[in-house]
Amino acid sequence: METTNEPLISIIRYNGSDYNFNASATVDDCLACRNKEGVTWINVNTASDLSLLKSLGESFGLHDLTIQDITNTNHRVKYEDFDRYLLIILKMLDFNTAERSINTEQLSIVFGSNFAITFQEFPGDFFGPLRDEIKIKDSIVRKMGADYLVCRIVDTVVDNYFGTVEDFGEVIEEKEDAVVANPTRETLSSIQSIKKNMMQLRQYVWPVREILSDLSKRGSPLIKESTLAYFRDVYDRVFEAMDMIENTREMVSGMIDIYLSSMSNKTNEVMKVLTVVATIFIPLTFIVGLYGMNFDNMPELHESWGYPAILIFMLTVAAGMLAYFHKKHWI
Amino acid sequence: METTNEPLISIIRYNGSDYNFNASATVDDCLACRNKEGVTWINVNTASDLSLLKSLGESFGLHDLTIQDITNTNHRVKYEDFDRYLLIILKMLDFNTAERSINTEQLSIVFGSNFAITFQEFPGDFFGPLRDEIKIKDSIVRKMGADYLVCRIVDTVVDNYFGTVEDFGEVIEEKEDAVVANPTRETLSSIQSIKKNMMQLRQYVWPVREILSDLSKRGSPLIKESTLAYFRDVYDRVFEAMDMIENTREMVSGMIDIYLSSMSNKTNEVMKVLTVVATIFIPLTFIVGLYGMNFDNMPELHESWGYPAILIFMLTVAAGMLAYFHKKHWI
Amino acid sequence: METTNEPLISIIRYNGSDYNFNASATVDDCLACRNKEGVTWINVNTASDLSLLKSLGESFGLHDLTIQDITNTNHRVKYEDFDRYLLIILKMLDFNTAERSINTEQLSIVFGSNFAITFQEFPGDFFGPLRDEIKIKDSIVRKMGADYLVCRIVDTVVDNYFGTVEDFGEVIEEKEDAVVANPTRETLSSIQSIKKNMMQLRQYVWPVREILSDLSKRGSPLIKESTLAYFRDVYDRVFEAMDMIENTREMVSGMIDIYLSSMSNKTNEVMKVLTVVATIFIPLTFIVGLYGMNFDNMPELHESWGYPAILIFMLTVAAGMLAYFHKKHWI
Amino acid sequence: METTNEPLISIIRYNGSDYNFNASATVDDCLACRNKEGVTWINVNTASDLSLLKSLGESFGLHDLTIQDITNTNHRVKYEDFDRYLLIILKMLDFNTAERSINTEQLSIVFGSNFAITFQEFPGDFFGPLRDEIKIKDSIVRKMGADYLVCRIVDTVVDNYFGTVEDFGEVIEEKEDAVVANPTRETLSSIQSIKKNMMQLRQYVWPVREILSDLSKRGSPLIKESTLAYFRDVYDRVFEAMDMIENTREMVSGMIDIYLSSMSNKTNEVMKVLTVVATIFIPLTFIVGLYGMNFDNMPELHESWGYPAILIFMLTVAAGMLAYFHKKHWI
Amino acid sequence: METTNEPLISIIRYNGSDYNFNASATVDDCLACRNKEGVTWINVNTASDLSLLKSLGESFGLHDLTIQDITNTNHRVKYEDFDRYLLIILKMLDFNTAERSINTEQLSIVFGSNFAITFQEFPGDFFGPLRDEIKIKDSIVRKMGADYLVCRIVDTVVDNYFGTVEDFGEVIEEKEDAVVANPTRETLSSIQSIKKNMMQLRQYVWPVREILSDLSKRGSPLIKESTLAYFRDVYDRVFEAMDMIENTREMVSGMIDIYLSSMSNKTNEVMKVLTVVATIFIPLTFIVGLYGMNFDNMPELHESWGYPAILIFMLTVAAGMLAYFHKKHWI
Repeated sequence: METTNEPLISIIRYNGSDYNFNASATVDDCLACRNKEGVTWINVNTASDLSLLKSLGESFGLHDLTIQDITNTNHRVKYEDFDRYLLIILKMLDFNTAERSINTEQLSIVFGSNFAITFQEFPGDFFGPLRDEIKIKDSIVRKMGADYLVCRIVDTVVDNYFGTVEDFGEVIEEKEDAVVANPTRETLSSIQSIKKNMMQLRQYVWPVREILSDLSKRGSPLIKESTLAYFRDVYDRVFEAMDMIENTREMVSGMIDIYLSSMSNKTNEVMKVLTVVATIFIPLTFIVGLYGMNFDNMPELHESWGYPAILIFMLTVAAGMLAYFHKKHWI
Repeated sequence: METTNEPLISIIRYNGSDYNFNASATVDDCLACRNKEGVTWINVNTASDLSLLKSLGESFGLHDLTIQDITNTNHRVKYEDFDRYLLIILKMLDFNTAERSINTEQLSIVFGSNFAITFQEFPGDFFGPLRDEIKIKDSIVRKMGADYLVCRIVDTVVDNYFGTVEDFGEVIEEKEDAVVANPTRETLSSIQSIKKNMMQLRQYVWPVREILSDLSKRGSPLIKESTLAYFRDVYDRVFEAMDMIENTREMVSGMIDIYLSSMSNKTNEVMKVLTVVATIFIPLTFIVGLYGMNFDNMPELHESWGYPAILIFMLTVAAGMLAYFHKKHWI
Repeated sequence: METTNEPLISIIRYNGSDYNFNASATVDDCLACRNKEGVTWINVNTASDLSLLKSLGESFGLHDLTIQDITNTNHRVKYEDFDRYLLIILKMLDFNTAERSINTEQLSIVFGSNFAITFQEFPGDFFGPLRDEIKIKDSIVRKMGADYLVCRIVDTVVDNYFGTVEDFGEVIEEKEDAVVANPTRETLSSIQSIKKNMMQLRQYVWPVREILSDLSKRGSPLIKESTLAYFRDVYDRVFEAMDMIENTREMVSGMIDIYLSSMSNKTNEVMKVLTVVATIFIPLTFIVGLYGMNFDNMPELHESWGYPAILIFMLTVAAGMLAYFHKKHWI
Repeated sequence: METTNEPLISIIRYNGSDYNFNASATVDDCLACRNKEGVTWINVNTASDLSLLKSLGESFGLHDLTIQDITNTNHRVKYEDFDRYLLIILKMLDFNTAERSINTEQLSIVFGSNFAITFQEFPGDFFGPLRDEIKIKDSIVRKMGADYLVCRIVDTVVDNYFGTVEDFGEVIEEKEDAVVANPTRETLSSIQSIKKNMMQLRQYVWPVREILSDLSKRGSPLIKESTLAYFRDVYDRVFEAMDMIENTREMVSGMIDIYLSSMSNKTNEVMKVLTVVATIFIPLTFIVGLYGMNFDNMPELHESWGYPAILIFMLTVAAGMLAYFHKKHWI
Repeated sequence: METTNEPLISIIRYNGSDYNFNASATVDDCLACRNKEGVTWINVNTASDLSLLKSLGESFGLHDLTIQDITNTNHRVKYEDFDRYLLIILKMLDFNTAERSINTEQLSIVFGSNFAITFQEFPGDFFGPLRDEIKIKDSIVRKMGADYLVCRIVDTVVDNYFGTVEDFGEVIEEKEDAVVANPTRETLSSIQSIKKNMMQLRQYVWPVREILSDLSKRGSPLIKESTLAYFRDVYDRVFEAMDMIENTREMVSGMIDIYLSSMSNKTNEVMKVLTVVATIFIPLTFIVGLYGMNFDNMPELHESWGYPAILIFMLTVAAGMLAYFHKKHWI
């Protein structure tokens, strides 16, 4: 995602029968839709152009704090009811394949009875299929109001969470072999970075659950009875996403255990090699040292069978040791 | 469980006096039962045939989202009240002996005042005894309504959880010996896979508790007062299942501790062998080295008792060491 | 506790003035007390004789599910209000000295306005002192109703929990020395078995708290105002028992830490012995090897002071090493 | 604190203008104050003289269970409302410097509209300053009622908790050096004993928070509106005490980590000594062994520079090794 | 921050049109503002001058306990409603770069309908920008009341928390390299000191969340409807700060894992060096010992190729060993 300086505004207006799309609209175009019938979806592809936001805000009667919240792209996921409109702030997530981290983009949704305005940080989004669906005359979205549109937008964002979590799941499975084969500190670092990412994900996804619970249970005059069931459905989806995140976290914890056990295994293996080699050769070295002594009175030294006998004896000792270690599964 | 392409619909109709069973019914047969007296239990042995589900859905007035939830076989366990009918989504679990994992099959139950429809993913289920009971004229189930039938279906599913958890308990006990005798990384992996399975089980069983709490406490016009006590009873059963799962989880945690302690024990044992061998032979090697020195003036070397004396001395040292290690319980 | 096939029914009937005891009553005797004045305490010494339970159940108007709950001796601790009577299911615990585990016996209490029926799994119980108290004409229990009797029965069961937890505390203290002196895998197993037992205890005791909270706070028409304070008192006792259990659990956790630290200490000690021996003798072996070389030109070898000098030098080195290790507290 | 057999009763009676102190009163003296105006503070310096407690109880209309609770000096911290009076059971704590543990003394407070009775286990308490304040005519306590007096008594007890926790904090700081310098199993034991003490403290302090929350929020006819703010203030103090306890617990956890790390460090150090010595001398021993071989054809042996050359070579090897270990920070 | 003995009082008075600033006011000046229109912000640069506080307290009708709370500079963060005024106690935090710890300064805020009094422990604060904003005639703060002023003061304090947490984040990143390169006990100590600081931070920040929740949800007659949204905004900010603290805590936990893994790695490396050296030279030493034996009958010794052959053989063995260790990634 690259930033552009040029703020892009697109307007989609539709009702059961009509459909208009204006790919590069101005604030005045937005204002013109203010009181028209049907649903108006204004998408603003930057959240940093303060003057643009202010004029839009004035047109649609947004509170100063709403403008501030939209501008602050590090804002927490939240939902606020301003009577005439609702503000929902979400995070759109994108798995960064190169760095194996999460790209975050804030999506602020403001919606009233007949309009929905979405503010994105960067151009490019996942709403293509939704836009295509709006073009189809008989689609459900064309028959419903702005509340359903928002429900679908949130649904799209939530659906995207699954993909992000799954991508992490794949990274974890890749790492699993590395952890066993060659556990290095870098492996631990990257496991912990996944853990950190999971925590971040949780921070983004968990409050969405609460938002949807509020929207679907307490309701709001801006949300029709018939749309509530759809919000409840997205609410279920968020729970599924949370389950996936929890499972992934558990996998990461399991990996740290495996990592530590692998480390311990490595030390064990090093120890075993040392022990096997030392235990075989230290006694043998003693024996050869014994017959290296310079005592005058060592009759074995002067027998012709002495040297071969001692060699055979040492071979026997070594073979016995090897058999012992084999029995112990050390070699 | 193998999937078949052919969707199988079976219909059981009964009241206090009559009993009908249609093993391979059509959607029209289902529709015909719509307004008949007594209880109709329609069992659909596939949840993926969308057109079939849609026509059934239309006949029984199911919401689009209900159809979607039934089709999505990865749906979370949940319960939703659609006024005219209730939707319960459960998981039927089956311990896969070969892979020592859980086979999951989604069971969606839709029930209204006089009917219950169950949607299974695959043919084959655990409801044989229940079906047999329905055939018996004087059984309680014949005297009660669709709400009691659903209660019994849920009860059967919950009862089955016990078997699944017990199977895992047995796997754990098998592993316990392996952990002590020969702790390998594979042992750890399989312990952690059991842990993962327990987490999954928890995810399936825990929400059932909530569903039954809702059903038995808040009630619903579709559930008669007299059936509530039975739902409360199943609720108690779910708690017992949760207790079993928690205990099994605790057993798994205990095993990981034992595993780590076994690993540590193994290192210890390797160390002991090295230490015993090295500690006995290193001093002896020093002694034989001593008398291997080439000093002119080493009178012991020229005594006839020198060699036997040094041998006896070394035996004494070795025996002393062995006694010391024996006292320390190292050998 | 041994099972007998013969179900034993005993009936105690009392009021302020009269006292009757029937040690081996029949169901008909029970039925006869149904509507008499005063308090009737029926104790059934088996919970498995279904036909007996059924006829008793019919006489006292018990729900089918109540009979089922009583029969199922693995039932969870619970309390249920059936309007005309209350059902309390508890566990009586007994520390099994031989196996150092808990013997569990289910106690089901059913009580109405003028009767209390207790169902035990096995003959033999802890209610002797309570029965004796009932014999005394001026005791409080004689002045109060069935609700107070039940309160005292529950109190006796709860009091017994203290003894059980204390017995475990003693086992733990015994094990503590073993853990430090000679930590083996068996020690760890037995610590973890205590932990498992504590978890089980918690499962039995924790719900009693909730039952008593419900009974003492919400009340019931079957419990008189004047008895509530006594229930609150038992409630306090359950809290004390929970505190004891938590402390014991903490002790067990502490022991696992000590166990792991002892294991680590053992490895450390083995290492120290190896290091001390190897570090002293390896340099000395080098020195004697040095003078075992066969160079023609090694003038020291031919001096008469050479051998004693090298011996003294080696003693000095060894003494220095020993001093160093002593300073490091390794020997 | 030593127990005396003689129960001591002291009575302080005061109002805005008068002040009476009776250091060794009888039960009759207490009874005489029953209906007098002003505030009566009766302090009973034993809680085990049952007959005394019973007659006092009858005089002031205390429930049998209240008497029982006061007698049971192992009672949990609690608060109970008996309409005509309130019962508060607290623990007075005292750091035992010798054994580095907590001395616990139960303080039961019973208070009504114009009296407060405090029951202590042993003579001697921390209420000296409070008693002195009561003597001063213009002090706040003289202007307020029995509720304020109780508030001050509780405040004194809570203030004392701070001292106790601080004393433990000092013990921990002392231990910290021992943990690093010479971590033994005894160190671990004493750390864990501090942890156990902290758990106990928590058990005593935590319920006080709840008691004060109940007293200050729900109120009681026995507590005047104007006193509520003072109770809230003590409530804040309890929170501060809890924070201190939590911080101390965290310090203890940190110490166990440091302990384990010190253990690991020690093993590491032992290993390093072994490795440095073995790694330097094993290769040198090989070299001297090499020239101890008895081959006929070893020309170096017969050169006059052979011996000095090999000595220089070995010194170089040893120096290189030392440099390597120095670079690795092992020596 | 250095303490001064001279208490400093500054008064800022403003309304939509006027602005007064008195940098060194007296208590009488404060009293004079008591009933004037507009907003009065009195800032007292010491919280320890009791007599000053008392006279101010009397002038503004503060409760004795409020004065006490302000004086006690170790007070817990809290909020209390005294009807005529609200008391908020916060902590201003400052990262101490030298000692890498937190400097804490208590800020007590008392505000009523037309005044706000802030009590600081030391001179010097972060409110410069806020004071500058008040000077600007058209700023929002000039149009709003004392409630908004307090909201801005709290906002400034909360904003400052972010900086403090970020400073710790930087310290952690610095430490991260030290942990990997050279893990010493000092490293562990400093990691744990950061953990302790994070706990402290949590204790200061967490209750602020509750305070703001209370203020923004329940409201108070002293807070206008229009200001509530601003309080909610600060509430969101506190949540963000908490998230940062939690993430930093997680980073610290991760570092302790890395520390332990580094320790383990170090032991491993020491072991490897020992094993490589010992495993190569122990067998070679055996070989040279073999040919140092004094048997008469060792024909190899007398061959001219014997010595070079054995040298070549030993080189081969050593090379084989090195190749093996290279394959195992030990060297």
